[in-house]
Amino acid sequence: MGCKGSSPLGGSWLEPQTSHYRKHTDRLRSGPMGPTSPSNLALAVDIGGTKLAVGVVDADGRLLDRAVEATPPDAPEDVLFERLTSLVDRFSSFERFSVCGVGCGGPMSSHGALVSPLNIPGWRSFPLAERLSRWTGLPTRVDNDAKALALAEGWVGAAVGVADFLAMVVSTGVGGGIVSGGVLLDGATGNAGHIGQMVVACPGRTLPRHVAGVLEAEASGTAIAAHTNRPAAEASTSVVAATGAFVGQAAGSVANLLDLGLVLVAGSVALGFGEPFFAAAQAEVDRICRLDFSRGTRIEPAGCGDAGPLIGAAAVGFRSLGRPIGIIAGE
Amino acid sequence: MGCKGSSPLGGSWLEPQTSHYRKHTDRLRSGPMGPTSPSNLALAVDIGGTKLAVGVVDADGRLLDRAVEATPPDAPEDVLFERLTSLVDRFSSFERFSVCGVGCGGPMSSHGALVSPLNIPGWRSFPLAERLSRWTGLPTRVDNDAKALALAEGWVGAAVGVADFLAMVVSTGVGGGIVSGGVLLDGATGNAGHIGQMVVACPGRTLPRHVAGVLEAEASGTAIAAHTNRPAAEASTSVVAATGAFVGQAAGSVANLLDLGLVLVAGSVALGFGEPFFAAAQAEVDRICRLDFSRGTRIEPAGCGDAGPLIGAAAVGFRSLGRPIGIIAGE
Repeated sequence: MGCKGSSPLGGSWLEPQTSHYRKHTDRLRSGPMGPTSPSNLALAVDIGGTKLAVGVVDADGRLLDRAVEATPPDAPEDVLFERLTSLVDRFSSFERFSVCGVGCGGPMSSHGALVSPLNIPGWRSFPLAERLSRWTGLPTRVDNDAKALALAEGWVGAAVGVADFLAMVVSTGVGGGIVSGGVLLDGATGNAGHIGQMVVACPGRTLPRHVAGVLEAEASGTAIAAHTNRPAAEASTSVVAATGAFVGQAAGSVANLLDLGLVLVAGSVALGFGEPFFAAAQAEVDRICRLDFSRGTRIEPAGCGDAGPLIGAAAVGFRSLGRPIGIIAGE
Repeated sequence: MGCKGSSPLGGSWLEPQTSHYRKHTDRLRSGPMGPTSPSNLALAVDIGGTKLAVGVVDADGRLLDRAVEATPPDAPEDVLFERLTSLVDRFSSFERFSVCGVGCGGPMSSHGALVSPLNIPGWRSFPLAERLSRWTGLPTRVDNDAKALALAEGWVGAAVGVADFLAMVVSTGVGGGIVSGGVLLDGATGNAGHIGQMVVACPGRTLPRHVAGVLEAEASGTAIAAHTNRPAAEASTSVVAATGAFVGQAAGSVANLLDLGLVLVAGSVALGFGEPFFAAAQAEVDRICRLDFSRGTRIEPAGCGDAGPLIGAAAVGFRSLGRPIGIIAGE
């Protein structure tokens, strides 16, 4: 289940251009150096509630370098953006890149033009793409981080060559991205994939700012902590199994609805729970997926590990240029 | 909410070609006669558990003629096909048509090549497209009847100009078809849209050959009859409201999941229940769809009425030729 992007694929690697760049970034792997066309590199940005990450990803989906900082809690709009640009500046000069791709927590409007990440209260309808594009001079595209993860999994992760699959993140919140017929679904405003807002229990439990009974109100880290009065990392065996079953119920319903046979799950809650979580999820998928076309649907850990968010962010950028991401069509 | 295909659109109408044709088909509306290019006509076939229908549909989505017969119950494979071909023959000669499109109950395999309609036990993995194509000499495409309905609604029904919507049929069974980003979703094997197999209740009620708690086991005509011991047409007010709520729960979940704002519902149960059903469904959609992008999602009756299945079948045919169906992309 390794991330295929981490194996040598014959492409050449980034030669650091400046001492500034050399100083501030980590080399993630060693290998032969050589010239890489600027048009084959993406500046990748991942905006999360706990950390900001920026990296360099090549056209084969390899994460070459990255830098990470904590997201300043409760920072106002501009302080947060300055923290991000100081991180981004470590990767200048930007002429080396063909595009800037960004994964960000949802929701967002107008296909990523304005972001309002649930976990970052300082940004409400913030024009992140426009601001970043002005800063770097690069064409810039922002998309939902779970949709970005789906692109990463299809590109170099556990869904390489699969035209129909669901990628999920079960973490503080619950999100998702759907590839159907080799196309990443955007929906009317770019928010397709919000599997956390599917109803899985009636009447279901309540959670502030959530509809009772939706997956995110039952199975997210936030929900588990609220319902059990301790962190998800300390969840009991029965809570782990119940969480897996809720995730499996939603995943199995989507497999039936969309005629897809593979569900990949990332996120700290799912991966932290590990095998018992996946066993419970698979049992529920097996219970639900009984049609000829859905029997045998698999729910498994995502393949890209902690490189997934930045590889996915780069994929958002490349996709916006019309480039296919593996077998997934460009825009 | 009328079917826009029934309004004059400036196209010319079919001039019957043979006395055989003239004798056996009903003129559905009157209007000026004129030459119509053969390449603009589809032979449309709708295969249902209770009736078989064949018709003529033009490139503007107008149903020009049709003939209907009862589906022989429990007929063996070839008797059923002979009944169909005798109906089809009323529309010869077939050179007038550019394509034959078929809507059929699911499930099916290999993108419609082999059909196994739940309500027609005589056909199991029956090669309907190949057999019909040999009979008529026409390129022939079979697709799920609820997907066909979605095409009809987007073409000339209540979803004209809408790039993201869900069409549902709530009848003996429950089916659906999804248009996302102007593309009809097929899924891995052509079976996308099976909303009847989404879980809406846990543990849910049981129904033979169904997973407990799926929408079809709670809200289909078959389920209502089984759970109440009387036909759906005699359902109590509370059963009508509960059925609407289950349909609204699934529809609202899909609206959140796929970022779509319009759900159209056809089928004898939904349309027979009428306004109280739609009010209950809308209330549940309103409860669930609370995100910025999903608030205001509408669930409404489909617009094509009883012409929908044949118009949709024709759309399946035209789509297979690569022709757009309204704003929905061709294959």
